[in-house]
Amino acid sequence: MSDSTAVEGAVLPALRLDRLPEVTRALADRADAHDREASFPADGIALVHDAGLLTATVAARHGGPGAGLTDTVRILRALGAGDPAVALISAMTLFVHAAEARTPRWPTAAYAEFLHTAADRPALVNHLRVEPELGSPVRGGLPATTARRAGDHWLLTGRKIYSTGAVGLDRMLVWARTDEDPVRVGSFLVRKDSPGLTVEPTWDHVGLRASRSDDVLFDGVRVPVDDVVALAAPGPATPDAVGGAWGALGLTALYLGVAEAARDWLVGFLHERVPTGLGAPLATLPRFQSAVGEIETALTGATVLVDALAADIDAGDPDAPGRAGAAKLLGTRAAIGAVEQALQLTGNHGLTRANPLQRHHRDVLCSRIHTPQDDSLLTAAGRAALDRHPLAAKDTP
Amino acid sequence: MSDSTAVEGAVLPALRLDRLPEVTRALADRADAHDREASFPADGIALVHDAGLLTATVAARHGGPGAGLTDTVRILRALGAGDPAVALISAMTLFVHAAEARTPRWPTAAYAEFLHTAADRPALVNHLRVEPELGSPVRGGLPATTARRAGDHWLLTGRKIYSTGAVGLDRMLVWARTDEDPVRVGSFLVRKDSPGLTVEPTWDHVGLRASRSDDVLFDGVRVPVDDVVALAAPGPATPDAVGGAWGALGLTALYLGVAEAARDWLVGFLHERVPTGLGAPLATLPRFQSAVGEIETALTGATVLVDALAADIDAGDPDAPGRAGAAKLLGTRAAIGAVEQALQLTGNHGLTRANPLQRHHRDVLCSRIHTPQDDSLLTAAGRAALDRHPLAAKDTP
Amino acid sequence: MSDSTAVEGAVLPALRLDRLPEVTRALADRADAHDREASFPADGIALVHDAGLLTATVAARHGGPGAGLTDTVRILRALGAGDPAVALISAMTLFVHAAEARTPRWPTAAYAEFLHTAADRPALVNHLRVEPELGSPVRGGLPATTARRAGDHWLLTGRKIYSTGAVGLDRMLVWARTDEDPVRVGSFLVRKDSPGLTVEPTWDHVGLRASRSDDVLFDGVRVPVDDVVALAAPGPATPDAVGGAWGALGLTALYLGVAEAARDWLVGFLHERVPTGLGAPLATLPRFQSAVGEIETALTGATVLVDALAADIDAGDPDAPGRAGAAKLLGTRAAIGAVEQALQLTGNHGLTRANPLQRHHRDVLCSRIHTPQDDSLLTAAGRAALDRHPLAAKDTP
Amino acid sequence: MSDSTAVEGAVLPALRLDRLPEVTRALADRADAHDREASFPADGIALVHDAGLLTATVAARHGGPGAGLTDTVRILRALGAGDPAVALISAMTLFVHAAEARTPRWPTAAYAEFLHTAADRPALVNHLRVEPELGSPVRGGLPATTARRAGDHWLLTGRKIYSTGAVGLDRMLVWARTDEDPVRVGSFLVRKDSPGLTVEPTWDHVGLRASRSDDVLFDGVRVPVDDVVALAAPGPATPDAVGGAWGALGLTALYLGVAEAARDWLVGFLHERVPTGLGAPLATLPRFQSAVGEIETALTGATVLVDALAADIDAGDPDAPGRAGAAKLLGTRAAIGAVEQALQLTGNHGLTRANPLQRHHRDVLCSRIHTPQDDSLLTAAGRAALDRHPLAAKDTP
Repeated sequence: MSDSTAVEGAVLPALRLDRLPEVTRALADRADAHDREASFPADGIALVHDAGLLTATVAARHGGPGAGLTDTVRILRALGAGDPAVALISAMTLFVHAAEARTPRWPTAAYAEFLHTAADRPALVNHLRVEPELGSPVRGGLPATTARRAGDHWLLTGRKIYSTGAVGLDRMLVWARTDEDPVRVGSFLVRKDSPGLTVEPTWDHVGLRASRSDDVLFDGVRVPVDDVVALAAPGPATPDAVGGAWGALGLTALYLGVAEAARDWLVGFLHERVPTGLGAPLATLPRFQSAVGEIETALTGATVLVDALAADIDAGDPDAPGRAGAAKLLGTRAAIGAVEQALQLTGNHGLTRANPLQRHHRDVLCSRIHTPQDDSLLTAAGRAALDRHPLAAKDTP
Repeated sequence: MSDSTAVEGAVLPALRLDRLPEVTRALADRADAHDREASFPADGIALVHDAGLLTATVAARHGGPGAGLTDTVRILRALGAGDPAVALISAMTLFVHAAEARTPRWPTAAYAEFLHTAADRPALVNHLRVEPELGSPVRGGLPATTARRAGDHWLLTGRKIYSTGAVGLDRMLVWARTDEDPVRVGSFLVRKDSPGLTVEPTWDHVGLRASRSDDVLFDGVRVPVDDVVALAAPGPATPDAVGGAWGALGLTALYLGVAEAARDWLVGFLHERVPTGLGAPLATLPRFQSAVGEIETALTGATVLVDALAADIDAGDPDAPGRAGAAKLLGTRAAIGAVEQALQLTGNHGLTRANPLQRHHRDVLCSRIHTPQDDSLLTAAGRAALDRHPLAAKDTP
Repeated sequence: MSDSTAVEGAVLPALRLDRLPEVTRALADRADAHDREASFPADGIALVHDAGLLTATVAARHGGPGAGLTDTVRILRALGAGDPAVALISAMTLFVHAAEARTPRWPTAAYAEFLHTAADRPALVNHLRVEPELGSPVRGGLPATTARRAGDHWLLTGRKIYSTGAVGLDRMLVWARTDEDPVRVGSFLVRKDSPGLTVEPTWDHVGLRASRSDDVLFDGVRVPVDDVVALAAPGPATPDAVGGAWGALGLTALYLGVAEAARDWLVGFLHERVPTGLGAPLATLPRFQSAVGEIETALTGATVLVDALAADIDAGDPDAPGRAGAAKLLGTRAAIGAVEQALQLTGNHGLTRANPLQRHHRDVLCSRIHTPQDDSLLTAAGRAALDRHPLAAKDTP
Repeated sequence: MSDSTAVEGAVLPALRLDRLPEVTRALADRADAHDREASFPADGIALVHDAGLLTATVAARHGGPGAGLTDTVRILRALGAGDPAVALISAMTLFVHAAEARTPRWPTAAYAEFLHTAADRPALVNHLRVEPELGSPVRGGLPATTARRAGDHWLLTGRKIYSTGAVGLDRMLVWARTDEDPVRVGSFLVRKDSPGLTVEPTWDHVGLRASRSDDVLFDGVRVPVDDVVALAAPGPATPDAVGGAWGALGLTALYLGVAEAARDWLVGFLHERVPTGLGAPLATLPRFQSAVGEIETALTGATVLVDALAADIDAGDPDAPGRAGAAKLLGTRAAIGAVEQALQLTGNHGLTRANPLQRHHRDVLCSRIHTPQDDSLLTAAGRAALDRHPLAAKDTP
């Protein structure tokens, strides 16, 4: 079939980037309801799946479209403009497929099986890393979640927090330590509905409410002994600069989509609102034109920046991943700033829940909480700049 | 000859982008003296010429290197880091050659003659547009400078202000009106040392002092009747979006170069400065690392943005010129902000004239004064965003 | 009795400023529940009444404590730190009493009767001014709400929006026009439970949810013919500079209270949060100390500013009211900025609804929507500065 | 005489606050020349002396006007608006007199003699504290400048930097250590023209050029053995909170004066500038009105803040000195921000040395360099806020 992609006897949905605008609209129609109820957006995920967007990054060698980061940021910006909760849940799956496309690390059978599922229905996967005691895992340390060897299985016990899309995940890549001596760490592949697996509905955030980033409890969950990704001695994580850049640029694009939705609502409002005393739409006032110009300029700059780095990364530019942190910091600031300015311009209209702007605002505030966070990015960027200086060597004794 | 480019019997200096670092250093060595004396940097211009940078944008069909905007922003960033006055004077010449490469408008003989000069020595050219009474010409209106027909010559009379590099220009493209009925406007080509031409040393700015952007008086200056570029009926200027983008991106790159020089000085200072109480360089303090990170992040983002749009424009992307305004606004803000932060971090050390930072600061403040200015950019960006909305049509009666 | 104040046979609750801390705490305990349910905080209003805070500004000549603006900003800051919805509802009543204390305008009997009610139980009053068609009334124009004369009564018909505390008001001062020729405008005194009066629960804001600033419908509501305040020919409102300053400073203080609550939560969080890798509270890190310092500095400055102007106004300084707009603009920016910074510092912890910071954030964003809004304040301040110049006269033809 | 103040046989000039406007104007007339030449403004100091402003803070018990901080900030704001170099030099003398008025620490004869000089002519005095090796003295450490005992004199040797007004000082209070065992530190009183005293004209700053904050070298300068102020064992400086507040508020007022001068120039420019296309002054455009409103609002807020704290300090409020740091940080930011905005609004006109705005800008940037600097203020404010929390005790082991 010309319209689809074959994978080992299964057929992934064809990638239909041309359907992005309609997907955005359909997601937007349901976003308010999901936000109010903080309900998992299964309907939205289905739409994303149907348009082939959820499997866009499956490698060509696996029968997928092999979309790069350029397409991924385009997809995530569009989904983010519709419903950023759907976009975030989708992003996690896209990132897992993209990582596997770059460097195969899953057990072969496990990935093939997962792709078969993905051909049938929306198949979500996500890394579960964060634990209550730990702070963010990227800053080092052993996980408390522990895999105990029992014959041909691991028994996994622990708690993960901030587990985006937990109730809808087909697979969880649970970062855990073994109880071996010497200890090893890796990502244990847990299937949905495994006995001992419980999702606790702890997520009650101001924003991205439908992302259901709940706690997940593992109480002796069985994982086949080979279903572990990258099991190895603990140590300073080999920095995956390209993977980090996918995350940074992909999520920045997602929140730029939120800001675009806010801008679009604002533009419509300014056209529709005709104060009695003015007799013309607010859109005709220089003050509002200039303010919209600030928003537009910020979003244009951030979008060009993200797109340019995504293209550079797809082209294999070795310097590009090192600039992704700057794009995240500047891009999320631009997105937040744009929505905040829209709020300032619209007074009560922007703050009432009858209009979506306040939701965009609550959502866009979540852009800062994804790692790496601003303070880490700034310190890293500063050290890199300082280290390029000839005198840098002598600072460190 | 492998090292040069032939042009109709003359030889333009070969374009040596590899020499940019040394040119930057050589310009930087002399920048303080030129700033203090507000003296025309003829020595720096000669260096730029020798490295083929001043003729980089001469079209291949004219025997030049035919450099595009990608190379031009690279050149101007490097020159700006050395001496932005040299860079600004050079930029004007580069823009004129680039415009002629895109769309030939000079009289053929006049351009050929100018290229012969450019093969022999640094040959500078600039548009002289601004007049005391007019405000900025891009906002419309007829010039007061008038060309009166006298046989096979025009006699040109008027005053131009902000004429960058005036004392060093080989050619001036003087925007003027004719005394005909109906009136025409165009750029009259004036040669250096023409009788009736006087440069008044009125330029006494806080920054870019060596750019010598003086007043130029024309008192019946003779211009051969054919030496006029684009003589035509006045009217709304055909917007030259690509030319505008060259100016916006080129000058933004120039000031990003200034900011890079400020960052480099700051980084050196932080490595060299070892407070007694600390016993280690300031560079080891998280507070300074984070602050340098802010600067580095801003400059990285702005540089990627400018470079990406320059590449898009070279590739003929029709949407790219429309984004150049955003890059100018964001890029000059980034440049100014970076230098201001460096000033804040260094106290008395940054403000003393014994160190170059205060000069970088005075120079970078000039970035905002080049047209289009921020308020115009914002209003234009806002209107464009508002006009994309379906309701836009009904706003205008 | 030493503990109370006599009023024409009734006894207003004694003003107990010493009880402010406990009232703040009690309100804070219930604020989350009222926010989630968007429920009218009758319990909180009762506490405010019991401590004599709701009648603090009743004039001494009416048997009240006669508190000035100095005490009022202190009260509103404390109430705002507890529950800004309670504070806002209370503020409206305090402002009405204070205005009556400065310049009696109520019918004598009506005010006496209202004070008797206020002696018995929490008696709330508010001006209802804003209408859907009108924009904000301070910018001029006739109200659409109309009073038709019917014998010894007016029959009031219309709709008011943003009617803070509507369901709990004992009295509404409804700004309306008469159907007379020539027309008059004034504030018609409507009692709770009047036939024809309906409160529509339209208020669904992101912040100040418990303020219940609903729509109120009047369908032929009877108002005794004398129960009208300041009935007069329409015209440019006599600017009540002192009354405007009470509103501006009082509401700014209220939101500074919200910001104080946010700061206090942040400080506690930084003391309690001990990252594993750090082994000490976040409060020990210079980065957080400096960030708290930004917040503290902003709040200190804004609080001194508001308090100083309040004292000046109580002292009758004629220049002070003209500075109240600056205090509102700077004070609300400081309050919003402080809470936003706290959000940035605390990531997921600040954004989860398990913690109050996100509520403080949603609440403090409402500070900007009270008139006069920032754009009006800035234009007014700018014009005043420009008009002081000798050349100002010639600008206006 | 009714118009003067008697002091032990001498007569200090009468304090004439009513002459502040004319002094401001006279200083402003000469400020540009002093800035260009970086020349000591002896003429301006004479004007300040003649109006009694230089001795305003001499205590009543010494026959002076005994002006408090309220008058001092008023004086310094007015002088700063005229010529901040004159203001800064004067401020140092005012602070010394004020400190002596609060707590007598000078040798009696030495102070009496100094007052006699001050009756005859402008008598300047300043603390010389900073040394090249030391960083700022407020952060602790022993000075390198050393007093060696030789009979009934000390012989003082060392170098001080940033010695404001050095060439014009009648007295220098030179912070130095003795060569005794155990060592003592104190302020050694050096007279002008002492043998061994050399002023090196090292001051070449971008701003406050006429303040001549040069290096001073002491090569065995003789100081009578009793002419030492506060000679004592070294140790953590007893924090002089009130003295610190005088410095913080006084200097902030000075720079607010600079910003007022910038605003006044801007206002005049906007009235005078009539673009051809507009046909009316820029002052009539809402964009400029709003921008002036930003500046005006910032300056109003900062001025009320400084004035309020000055009054509180004069009234002995024990909490007020602790808030002076906030006023310095917010006030200098307001001053710098106001001038920067004026620069942004005026393009080339603001940046040319033909207009004073660029000088105001260079001057106002110096506001940040006076101790305590922003980072110290923020950390101190943050720690104070954190330390108020009940959990604070447990942070420190």
